[in-house]
Amino acid sequence: MADTCWPGCSKSLKGVILDMCGVLYDSGEGDGVAISGSTEAVKKLKESDLQLRFCTNETQAARETFVAKLQRLGFDISVPEVFSPAPAVIAVLKERGLRPHLLVYDGLVPEFDGVDTSNPNCVVIGDAAEKFSYQNLNDAFRVLIGLEKPVLFSLGQGRYYKETDGLKLDVGVYMKALEYACDLKAEVIGKPNPTFFQSVVSDMGLQPHEVLMIGDDLVNDVGGAQHCGMKGVQVRTGKYRPSDERHPTVTADGTVDNLAQAVDMILSQRH
Amino acid sequence: MADTCWPGCSKSLKGVILDMCGVLYDSGEGDGVAISGSTEAVKKLKESDLQLRFCTNETQAARETFVAKLQRLGFDISVPEVFSPAPAVIAVLKERGLRPHLLVYDGLVPEFDGVDTSNPNCVVIGDAAEKFSYQNLNDAFRVLIGLEKPVLFSLGQGRYYKETDGLKLDVGVYMKALEYACDLKAEVIGKPNPTFFQSVVSDMGLQPHEVLMIGDDLVNDVGGAQHCGMKGVQVRTGKYRPSDERHPTVTADGTVDNLAQAVDMILSQRH
Repeated sequence: MADTCWPGCSKSLKGVILDMCGVLYDSGEGDGVAISGSTEAVKKLKESDLQLRFCTNETQAARETFVAKLQRLGFDISVPEVFSPAPAVIAVLKERGLRPHLLVYDGLVPEFDGVDTSNPNCVVIGDAAEKFSYQNLNDAFRVLIGLEKPVLFSLGQGRYYKETDGLKLDVGVYMKALEYACDLKAEVIGKPNPTFFQSVVSDMGLQPHEVLMIGDDLVNDVGGAQHCGMKGVQVRTGKYRPSDERHPTVTADGTVDNLAQAVDMILSQRH
Repeated sequence: MADTCWPGCSKSLKGVILDMCGVLYDSGEGDGVAISGSTEAVKKLKESDLQLRFCTNETQAARETFVAKLQRLGFDISVPEVFSPAPAVIAVLKERGLRPHLLVYDGLVPEFDGVDTSNPNCVVIGDAAEKFSYQNLNDAFRVLIGLEKPVLFSLGQGRYYKETDGLKLDVGVYMKALEYACDLKAEVIGKPNPTFFQSVVSDMGLQPHEVLMIGDDLVNDVGGAQHCGMKGVQVRTGKYRPSDERHPTVTADGTVDNLAQAVDMILSQRH
């Protein structure tokens, strides 16, 4: 009978999905910094027989720009391997004939080049960071409160993330703010939405139980992946906090010091 | 048997509490503007045998400054008649030996002159408006997330208010943001907290059933007052919206066009 526990379950894995910020690198000024051992770990996974995808709620840059940054940091990575919320929300907007008011980071705007933003009938927020000024949040609020049926899309629902100079508030915080202001429930695009995880698994041509997610965010990476039927392992880098290991509702299948350790454990089970 | 319905209940009233912004005046550039008929309505109440107090969640200015503004707008009003959250939270801070990190409007800072803000072990947020920058909210977040037992006080929990140039996000929105970021529940100081309403009723030497609250905020003014045992009447000025009249949980004892109409109805019952 197959071992369903970490790390024994690695024997039967066919694919791995990696979160990016906090697993591969810490963001911050300039390109940020690669986390020790992570470029080599990605290289080892690519040389293995496992399929590999990257899954991020990163919404500060268009995918091309973001992938170029990772390449500068030394990672063997290409655009089609990376799944992020902006292309996903654009598909939903087109399907439903919605025209968004955008509250996103300047760097993400190019992703929305072909999207009609005139006379908006919904709001899309991403991790806008410094763009989350009072004025900009108020502008988004006024669009929503002026709609008969207000629709808010949030690209992820993270609480905070870690940059080289400390913890930073993430988009989920502003999603909750607008939800309360307008008495509505946002539609979350990105992790931990099961539809988003499923799209990555489908792209690999695999079933969820054949795939392992590795992330630093217990609820959105690990919990979201588990909810979708995958295994989820948490790294003690990025936004990891010791209290995650006694979380009331989410228990990781495994907790490891960093990506390098996770990959070594996976590959050693397969030899 | 006494009439318990509006406006018949006015016969047995002994006191009235007025909300300020949206009832007496609309805020905006400079001092804002008095709502038509409201200065005369306050004058009529003062000339009646009813006790009168003012109760506000206003936290953009120290009480002295705020009252001076109302006087310039033509209102007969003095500082001891006005109840606001800042003095209430200062009492709580002293009682519990807490040192706040303040995220409040510059104009409110003088209220906290005698308060120790060194090495903070809690956060106090007020309606900081433009001061609710990403940087400032992140600073408050970092204080909270660094505390073993984070404590957040919110001066009110309003969703939004109306200024002369449109709707503005209120402190409650940022309270929800920090609650989500830090996974905590804020302590609300001000309306609709029953302790806050009770302190106003006690100052008049009355019982709640002898007092009527008039406000433009259905949940925080009307619902809060009713929860405390008072009658609550909503005016169709300020942040009033037609959908308030079919709210799922709060039903005003009466709804009137404006303060002038409310006061005329009260006083006509008493002659």
